[in-house]
Amino acid sequence: MTKRFVSELVAGSAIDEVFLLAQRNMAHKKDGNPFLNVTLSDRTGQVKGVVWDQVERIVAAVAEGDFVHVRAQVSEYRGSLQVVVKDMVRVPPEQVDVDDFLEATTRDVGKMLARLKEMTGRMKTPCLKALFDAFWADDAFVAAYVRAPAAKLMHHAYIGGLLEHTLSMAVLSEMIAGHYSGVDRDLLLAGVILHDVGKTRELEYTRSIDYSDEGRLLSHIIIGLSMLDEKLKQVPDFPELQAQLLKHMIVSHHGTRAFGSPEPPKTIEAVLLNFIDEMDSRVNSIREYVAKDPSDGSWTPYHRLLERHFYKGPRVSDSPEG
Amino acid sequence: MTKRFVSELVAGSAIDEVFLLAQRNMAHKKDGNPFLNVTLSDRTGQVKGVVWDQVERIVAAVAEGDFVHVRAQVSEYRGSLQVVVKDMVRVPPEQVDVDDFLEATTRDVGKMLARLKEMTGRMKTPCLKALFDAFWADDAFVAAYVRAPAAKLMHHAYIGGLLEHTLSMAVLSEMIAGHYSGVDRDLLLAGVILHDVGKTRELEYTRSIDYSDEGRLLSHIIIGLSMLDEKLKQVPDFPELQAQLLKHMIVSHHGTRAFGSPEPPKTIEAVLLNFIDEMDSRVNSIREYVAKDPSDGSWTPYHRLLERHFYKGPRVSDSPEG
Amino acid sequence: MTKRFVSELVAGSAIDEVFLLAQRNMAHKKDGNPFLNVTLSDRTGQVKGVVWDQVERIVAAVAEGDFVHVRAQVSEYRGSLQVVVKDMVRVPPEQVDVDDFLEATTRDVGKMLARLKEMTGRMKTPCLKALFDAFWADDAFVAAYVRAPAAKLMHHAYIGGLLEHTLSMAVLSEMIAGHYSGVDRDLLLAGVILHDVGKTRELEYTRSIDYSDEGRLLSHIIIGLSMLDEKLKQVPDFPELQAQLLKHMIVSHHGTRAFGSPEPPKTIEAVLLNFIDEMDSRVNSIREYVAKDPSDGSWTPYHRLLERHFYKGPRVSDSPEG
Amino acid sequence: MTKRFVSELVAGSAIDEVFLLAQRNMAHKKDGNPFLNVTLSDRTGQVKGVVWDQVERIVAAVAEGDFVHVRAQVSEYRGSLQVVVKDMVRVPPEQVDVDDFLEATTRDVGKMLARLKEMTGRMKTPCLKALFDAFWADDAFVAAYVRAPAAKLMHHAYIGGLLEHTLSMAVLSEMIAGHYSGVDRDLLLAGVILHDVGKTRELEYTRSIDYSDEGRLLSHIIIGLSMLDEKLKQVPDFPELQAQLLKHMIVSHHGTRAFGSPEPPKTIEAVLLNFIDEMDSRVNSIREYVAKDPSDGSWTPYHRLLERHFYKGPRVSDSPEG
Amino acid sequence: MTKRFVSELVAGSAIDEVFLLAQRNMAHKKDGNPFLNVTLSDRTGQVKGVVWDQVERIVAAVAEGDFVHVRAQVSEYRGSLQVVVKDMVRVPPEQVDVDDFLEATTRDVGKMLARLKEMTGRMKTPCLKALFDAFWADDAFVAAYVRAPAAKLMHHAYIGGLLEHTLSMAVLSEMIAGHYSGVDRDLLLAGVILHDVGKTRELEYTRSIDYSDEGRLLSHIIIGLSMLDEKLKQVPDFPELQAQLLKHMIVSHHGTRAFGSPEPPKTIEAVLLNFIDEMDSRVNSIREYVAKDPSDGSWTPYHRLLERHFYKGPRVSDSPEG
Amino acid sequence: MTKRFVSELVAGSAIDEVFLLAQRNMAHKKDGNPFLNVTLSDRTGQVKGVVWDQVERIVAAVAEGDFVHVRAQVSEYRGSLQVVVKDMVRVPPEQVDVDDFLEATTRDVGKMLARLKEMTGRMKTPCLKALFDAFWADDAFVAAYVRAPAAKLMHHAYIGGLLEHTLSMAVLSEMIAGHYSGVDRDLLLAGVILHDVGKTRELEYTRSIDYSDEGRLLSHIIIGLSMLDEKLKQVPDFPELQAQLLKHMIVSHHGTRAFGSPEPPKTIEAVLLNFIDEMDSRVNSIREYVAKDPSDGSWTPYHRLLERHFYKGPRVSDSPEG
Repeated sequence: MTKRFVSELVAGSAIDEVFLLAQRNMAHKKDGNPFLNVTLSDRTGQVKGVVWDQVERIVAAVAEGDFVHVRAQVSEYRGSLQVVVKDMVRVPPEQVDVDDFLEATTRDVGKMLARLKEMTGRMKTPCLKALFDAFWADDAFVAAYVRAPAAKLMHHAYIGGLLEHTLSMAVLSEMIAGHYSGVDRDLLLAGVILHDVGKTRELEYTRSIDYSDEGRLLSHIIIGLSMLDEKLKQVPDFPELQAQLLKHMIVSHHGTRAFGSPEPPKTIEAVLLNFIDEMDSRVNSIREYVAKDPSDGSWTPYHRLLERHFYKGPRVSDSPEG
Repeated sequence: MTKRFVSELVAGSAIDEVFLLAQRNMAHKKDGNPFLNVTLSDRTGQVKGVVWDQVERIVAAVAEGDFVHVRAQVSEYRGSLQVVVKDMVRVPPEQVDVDDFLEATTRDVGKMLARLKEMTGRMKTPCLKALFDAFWADDAFVAAYVRAPAAKLMHHAYIGGLLEHTLSMAVLSEMIAGHYSGVDRDLLLAGVILHDVGKTRELEYTRSIDYSDEGRLLSHIIIGLSMLDEKLKQVPDFPELQAQLLKHMIVSHHGTRAFGSPEPPKTIEAVLLNFIDEMDSRVNSIREYVAKDPSDGSWTPYHRLLERHFYKGPRVSDSPEG
Repeated sequence: MTKRFVSELVAGSAIDEVFLLAQRNMAHKKDGNPFLNVTLSDRTGQVKGVVWDQVERIVAAVAEGDFVHVRAQVSEYRGSLQVVVKDMVRVPPEQVDVDDFLEATTRDVGKMLARLKEMTGRMKTPCLKALFDAFWADDAFVAAYVRAPAAKLMHHAYIGGLLEHTLSMAVLSEMIAGHYSGVDRDLLLAGVILHDVGKTRELEYTRSIDYSDEGRLLSHIIIGLSMLDEKLKQVPDFPELQAQLLKHMIVSHHGTRAFGSPEPPKTIEAVLLNFIDEMDSRVNSIREYVAKDPSDGSWTPYHRLLERHFYKGPRVSDSPEG
Repeated sequence: MTKRFVSELVAGSAIDEVFLLAQRNMAHKKDGNPFLNVTLSDRTGQVKGVVWDQVERIVAAVAEGDFVHVRAQVSEYRGSLQVVVKDMVRVPPEQVDVDDFLEATTRDVGKMLARLKEMTGRMKTPCLKALFDAFWADDAFVAAYVRAPAAKLMHHAYIGGLLEHTLSMAVLSEMIAGHYSGVDRDLLLAGVILHDVGKTRELEYTRSIDYSDEGRLLSHIIIGLSMLDEKLKQVPDFPELQAQLLKHMIVSHHGTRAFGSPEPPKTIEAVLLNFIDEMDSRVNSIREYVAKDPSDGSWTPYHRLLERHFYKGPRVSDSPEG
Repeated sequence: MTKRFVSELVAGSAIDEVFLLAQRNMAHKKDGNPFLNVTLSDRTGQVKGVVWDQVERIVAAVAEGDFVHVRAQVSEYRGSLQVVVKDMVRVPPEQVDVDDFLEATTRDVGKMLARLKEMTGRMKTPCLKALFDAFWADDAFVAAYVRAPAAKLMHHAYIGGLLEHTLSMAVLSEMIAGHYSGVDRDLLLAGVILHDVGKTRELEYTRSIDYSDEGRLLSHIIIGLSMLDEKLKQVPDFPELQAQLLKHMIVSHHGTRAFGSPEPPKTIEAVLLNFIDEMDSRVNSIREYVAKDPSDGSWTPYHRLLERHFYKGPRVSDSPEG
Repeated sequence: MTKRFVSELVAGSAIDEVFLLAQRNMAHKKDGNPFLNVTLSDRTGQVKGVVWDQVERIVAAVAEGDFVHVRAQVSEYRGSLQVVVKDMVRVPPEQVDVDDFLEATTRDVGKMLARLKEMTGRMKTPCLKALFDAFWADDAFVAAYVRAPAAKLMHHAYIGGLLEHTLSMAVLSEMIAGHYSGVDRDLLLAGVILHDVGKTRELEYTRSIDYSDEGRLLSHIIIGLSMLDEKLKQVPDFPELQAQLLKHMIVSHHGTRAFGSPEPPKTIEAVLLNFIDEMDSRVNSIREYVAKDPSDGSWTPYHRLLERHFYKGPRVSDSPEG
């Protein structure tokens, strides 16, 4: 039987399903009896709930962060769904498919990786080609690289998001390197593929996506440079100047100091990397925001960070009379 | 005989050539006799000079803004070239090729325009196609559109620069509209072609490039919207919504209020237009800056507006061992 | 019988009155029975409420945005008033006075308009006088102009607010044009009357005040310029320079790019318009904020946008010993 | 019997204790009967509560701002503690120890003051020494100076906080004046001791810490300068230049106009005062934030004002293997 | 014989006139002989010059800051006027009219002061009226108040500028206090007259306008508050609240912390004072800028601080067809 | 014979000395004969000069960047010194003391280094102590560390400046770690000593101080982290957490992203490092600015970067009556 996801719940129905127990707080009714406020989640979202009965037994049996099998009734409370839990039992992690509980890319990870490898295989700069051979031969690196999200919240914030974002940028970078003369295609492509490798350690993404200690202390730019430094040592006679130009791509890819880059882009390739990164992140972030907005009408709710509503209504080309 | 340009002058040589007299100031030597400080220019730059003899006759004969035939000796003064003028006579404008005195695109204007027309000819949205038919049929508009610079100083600041910039963006926009699903290719392309049409009136570009009165009072965004409004009236039954979405492309193409857009981009097409415009302007501006830098070494002088030096040294891919 | 308004409700009383049903959400009690959370509003404010009984019948009969006749008991819940609804039935719009449901100016709209017309009638610049004759002769324009609010939230955010704000500015502009020599009184007055005409289309103000699609895509500055362009065509031989100076008043009236003006004020009249607009808006906004603050003491609550508390205590001149 | 503080309450226990009644709101149950929502506080924090019974009698007997004797049961509601009040009676202020209700420094106030006096006693600049003799001889001033908090919220926000902050800065200033040559130790120390004297009137700190009317209208910088002006008149022949240099320390101690200083620091002593003030405030503020964070793990919650999480985990020097 | 001013010099003429010797530097010709570069100034501007002969005698006789009688020939050098000095002798200050050397208001100082006194004479708040009686009775204060400039550079930067600026604001404040209900006219007027009194000591304005030591250390806001404090003590029983509200006018008149006000305006009168001050300063500053621009055309040069060109061309109302 | 430095030159004297030829430009006199404009420099400053005779021979013999022996006469030109060169011959670098041509610390470099080593020798955290043993054992590192300046322009911009700045901070950090409880003294000291090690490669400081290619591409923060990474590998079993906390000190020492730190300080030690660094840099920078100002009076010229004049006048404690 396929899992019923949070996004599929409707008021008035009954559920019998496994969720992640994200939060759990005990409270007391006026008569002095305890009850539980809980938050249940999976990769499609989260929902609040209450447990009125058998509270003590349940409290003893499940902890925050556990996977739990829940029998419950779905209702509405103050305009939101609320799950009234009848029973809740712990499920061992090995019995669940972890991927049900963290949102993931809908694209084929194997194909995306193969496409990136094909691109680095076409590089004409021997030292860069050798560098990527070293990266792709590192199984632990590849395993993390294909699984990491590209961010905690803003864009591509799901399992495989880093790879999806990187591949989209790589395709754009080939187009753009062909459009402008005087651009070093291999250097640009190398910068694109490496610019966010530090995300594999800046973030943790086992049961939920959050920053690691190392991520908070150092940032993915610093971590990525350290990872690159290590791999550069494995390529014999990597030219010092090329190493500095490549590191500069990572150092400067946020565009300005105010956004966390210690130096701004100073080569044409670094300038292009910054634009491609911003454009691809922004497009993905807006499309996710529009896609997740359940409201009617032509406009999304106000986007606090980008400080505007986005238009999601029809374009004339959609219609016969356009 | 081909003209000898300012950029070709060398200390120690003699010249016999036509320039624009950009500035002219009288001064007095210690012995009480007058002399002239002058600035001569053409499309390749400007040079300072002095007139020691026959000052009164020359002053009476030539005015600032005149084209002048100059016989002179080129020397150096405090590290710069200085022209010591022996004689200077006014030349009627009809005897000079105005294009020698304003920098212009090196690309073929006719081909660039044809390529743009071909693109609008492939539009599938009837109302947009009809709109561009109206624009291309307006000879006065086309004449200005193919001649206007894209800016006074920053990027594509030469005759034909607007067309060159627009075409480059149009090509990029076709690539990018193909890369991301859900983008209205015709709306994006229309926005690209129209985003800077107001530049044709914001700037004056007969003998030099500067702002017009209308440009200073209204800005090219406002002027462009007014030009679009006029053309929209010539297309029967242009859908109101499409008109607003198209105007929004012009309104928002600077990206933020701080950069002069009354509203930020709120459609995916307007977001893309803003990125493509910024990227193409920035790339052109850096390449011009690097190309015009005569200094040795791997770095340009400090760029005050962009607040950095740019790297112009070799990349490893340039070299055999790369 | 006069309507009892939201602002007049007191805990412990019963009501039998028509409101706008602003929001409606179903929820479920522990026993599984549904209830409704509702928000009722009129021009004096809004109040939350609950419906415990006959929920299904009511849900079927009324929708958000309907006018509803409500019988209920007013109580307090967590420090705010709460309406416990006994019955709720839909009322056709034609049976209500729409003005009861949107806050409106307390001033006489006819007199305010007459005063503005008297001022434009005294203009000595023929082309400007002719322009306003065209505006005042446009009944659809006048109908919108006297009804539009000046903003959604910040100041004069009520029906007729635009007219009230404009007239106050017009009176100030006559004083100030008389105070400083060298100010073109007619140009300043014309700018004052036209600076916000785009608000008539930027906002919607039938049942509530919000932005229109056109408003979000273009902003009132752009819309106002388009409206002015249209009217200018109806005045024969309107001098081009005067048209540009007048448009510049609208373009620059927000003072800086950061506040949405593509160009800053560059004429003395545009500079004055910006100051008069800011002063009148700020004064109105503070007075509204103070007037609506029900708290005791000498200070309003913290004003988040203006980042301060405002003093509302006595001045010494109020008191005998002052 | 020692008082049981808010910070010591645990769900499930009964209490019989005096608190400050910070807030009180009446509400109604579905059956029409009233109940009370209350907030109780003391120097360790605040807790929400409800009164279900005898509501009318209690409402008549106690007002916001009263000290109240409460008998109640502690429970949990939506993840927070909630006090279910059985009875509540007013307690006259003279029967309570006011210090139980406002957080205070844990250091010995008398010793701190003595240390400051010892430091001013060692001054070698006669006029400054005489100035502090005048301050210390002013009993009303000293009483306020040793009791005032250093801020409402940010740092040293407790009774005696101003003195604690000032003494810490004074000790640092002696070290630093010894470290750098050319620093006028007496001028720096005088600036340190006086920089925040205006806080004694900017804030009110009887039952809670908040701004006074004078504080909101003038700021502690202005008030402090006025207090200094008054004392300067009591010192015969105080040199005018020294008075200006000393006032400059107060004027500029926030470092920049944006932080409220009309002039930035222009003497080496004023520059040092600004750094010492910022460092000591920041260190105290972070340590308070870490100390009050009850959460597990190595990181505090996000600090909105300082825009980061703070690390509170172990350092290697804490551990045997460090 | 009337003085010939710097602004009246023309190339080719001879002069025999007194100036202020603003700068004096010795240099050497190639032949080893010394010469002098000098700067001469009066209230209309300054001009550079050279002394070729008798250099040693002149150096011994005149110093920077002296008034000097100059015989010379006026020529042009690199586009500017240059004075070739034949002789230069010191003139004792008592033999010159100091007002020839500092720019001054063109308005009647006595009448301006009388108008201000008339306005304070009409005050209905006894304590404020008494306060101004005390100010006007202080001869030293009045002497400085009618002579001080309002700024070093930006606006009303000439002798009597403070009075001219204050009176203009006072007249505006009466209009505006009459326009808006609920404004305390006396408090607003008092704030207007006192807001910049600190300028009398912040600036020095004997031979040139510059900041005083006290001005640099404290700012005119702080100095003005101290002057007010002193006068307040001379008015028996001045109400404490009124004193604070009046001081708040001075404290907040720059509008924001970033512009040097420790607190922003929090009363309606303080808000109005800030707008009136900004408007009057800006109008004066633009008009001075336009008036002093000798260039042809419709536009001033770029104004660096205000970041724009100003339009100085015709308005249609100027012309017959307007 | 001791060298005569640029700072010691006086108009009217003759010189016979070695300088660095910083700039060299040929120009032509009116008679067509060439001459040279040159700039000569040493560690005390630079001076402009001219060569009138034997120009061609000299041009052939010396290049920019050479050390040159100069015989000349010192005069004044337009208020500055000017050297009239009679003869100029190249001097091989091995014949000059390079230290005469770059400004250097006046403190004893050996003693400063010894003091730092003594401090690290007292560390109680074994892994940190071992880390510094590795650094001090690296002769190439130490040679660069004791010679590097701390900046190109702003503070400690001279040979040995990095060491002087670091030692001053180290002494302060010991005081402050003793003042506040809960500070890890060893971690703070380690951060202080390492925070700017990247400067040894970010800057070049052989004949003049400027940025290296690596410095412009990567910044000293990134370079320093890479140097630390390398040394950490030489310490067996360096705890991972300690490595991250130590790197965080370097990463965050500029305090905010806007100043080039990818992450802000998140530990109490990193917060203190940032304050100590800013304070020590600022104090040094102001003292250098005051020391190098030759002007009379109580104030320095306006400091563009710090946006103020600095007071350099007397303090009362300097005088008998203080």
